[in-house]
Amino acid sequence: MKIIRNIAEMQKYSDSIRRAARKTPHIMGFVPTMGYLHEGHISLVNAGAKDCTKMAVSIFVNPAQFGPNEDLTKYPRDEQRDLTMLEETKSVDCVFIPSAEEMYPEGYAAYVNMENEMTKTLCGISRPGHFKGVMTVVAKLLNAVKPDKMYLGHKDMQQAIILTKMIKDLNYDTEVIICPTVREKDGLALSSRNSYLSPEERNTAPVLYKALQMAVSMSELGERDAAVIIREIKRKLKEDRVEIDYVEIVNPMTLEKTEKISGSALIAAAIFVGKTRLIDNAVIRVSE
Amino acid sequence: MKIIRNIAEMQKYSDSIRRAARKTPHIMGFVPTMGYLHEGHISLVNAGAKDCTKMAVSIFVNPAQFGPNEDLTKYPRDEQRDLTMLEETKSVDCVFIPSAEEMYPEGYAAYVNMENEMTKTLCGISRPGHFKGVMTVVAKLLNAVKPDKMYLGHKDMQQAIILTKMIKDLNYDTEVIICPTVREKDGLALSSRNSYLSPEERNTAPVLYKALQMAVSMSELGERDAAVIIREIKRKLKEDRVEIDYVEIVNPMTLEKTEKISGSALIAAAIFVGKTRLIDNAVIRVSE
Repeated sequence: MKIIRNIAEMQKYSDSIRRAARKTPHIMGFVPTMGYLHEGHISLVNAGAKDCTKMAVSIFVNPAQFGPNEDLTKYPRDEQRDLTMLEETKSVDCVFIPSAEEMYPEGYAAYVNMENEMTKTLCGISRPGHFKGVMTVVAKLLNAVKPDKMYLGHKDMQQAIILTKMIKDLNYDTEVIICPTVREKDGLALSSRNSYLSPEERNTAPVLYKALQMAVSMSELGERDAAVIIREIKRKLKEDRVEIDYVEIVNPMTLEKTEKISGSALIAAAIFVGKTRLIDNAVIRVSE
Repeated sequence: MKIIRNIAEMQKYSDSIRRAARKTPHIMGFVPTMGYLHEGHISLVNAGAKDCTKMAVSIFVNPAQFGPNEDLTKYPRDEQRDLTMLEETKSVDCVFIPSAEEMYPEGYAAYVNMENEMTKTLCGISRPGHFKGVMTVVAKLLNAVKPDKMYLGHKDMQQAIILTKMIKDLNYDTEVIICPTVREKDGLALSSRNSYLSPEERNTAPVLYKALQMAVSMSELGERDAAVIIREIKRKLKEDRVEIDYVEIVNPMTLEKTEKISGSALIAAAIFVGKTRLIDNAVIRVSE
């Protein structure tokens, strides 16, 4: 009789049973998406295909992560186009496309929450309940797909940090890999929501990237005062008359606000361009 | 490229990969416990050993399910005795005994909750937060142990019903099997907490079982009014001067209160014998 005292060993034992006598061990990679795929999603699939022997992608516009006044119903959808894009990668073995009724049948009631400040800061302020919905759907997807590795985009950095913490806390043995944000030539981060932008708004939108790059430059030139950098970002954004949701500089592990930058810091911002809410971020690394 | 639209099929696909080329498929059974084992736990192991090819048992006194004024520190523990009992079954392949630090390291923050009335009724009234702690630890244990089947005791029926709902909602592909309560000769349900009882209290404790059996008899004799049955149970309990926490008759699926009994109903009760809180329940099935 084996006595096991830590989680990783327990999982190893469980897997050794599940995988007993298997000749070719597989590594399953997973990219969760809300569909309306773009090159950002495809870059996650390609990153996964390098590490994994099987790749799964989910397409599910998750109602639980949208607030009552958010864009759930108008969120863009095009399943045929998504499937074509995934076929073209030649790397996807499986696409998981559950219906909302399959995921949240009548009487659905179980939710995953994070009882600290991580979900209440940044996007959590203007989107209360958003991260509870994200954590819940990802817990459900992990239980359905059972991947070895999950690939997330750097653009949604708060989401990636919260999910990494959730996965650790709840003992999922899925490794999270955060991949670089894919951008348009003018720097705008790819996002399914970019399809909402009018041509004029599309011209304005790269200001978010430019303001963040300016902030990175300021830190490279020696600025360590977060308040000074934030003030300059806001000044630049206001020049282009976009509405600011938030601009913050935080600890990239805990998402707590940083006053003096040392080591690494995450500059995160959300703006409205017209009615479209866009987010982006940049990591600052300063040598002491 | 496979397209999958429902959870069960997704899990089947994932498992077919994990289990590919495996010659002897295993079924892993799991009994989660807080240790200080008794014949009730052993009956769960024995039930599992009939269905499963591998049996895992966890021993973990879960701090998250104890309230600030409850019996966490004095909860009985005897690991050597537990291990001996499990060895003697000759059916247990693996015992998972994590430390509290392994399960809830510093900064732990993720919790599973049920956003309906199931966790707020019965034991949830006098033990707020209890079922959140239970759901969280069981989610963590399921992610660690990855069992095919989990065996729970009928004595903790509210717990079993809530966990069954959580498992369904969060897409765990673990089957829950609820096994009959094991009792002393005088009817007292086995419980690790029975060790708290003084000899005199131990003599009083079976009144809970007797009151529930009386209620079953009343329903068999045609009584359908839940309020009448509850009143008689309370009267019987008060004769023995035990303190009543609750006596309720509820729907065994939703745990909503029943007024007129039809089909099946769950009579659930909690009492204090001295300082020791004891629970028990009985199922009524009436033909229409």
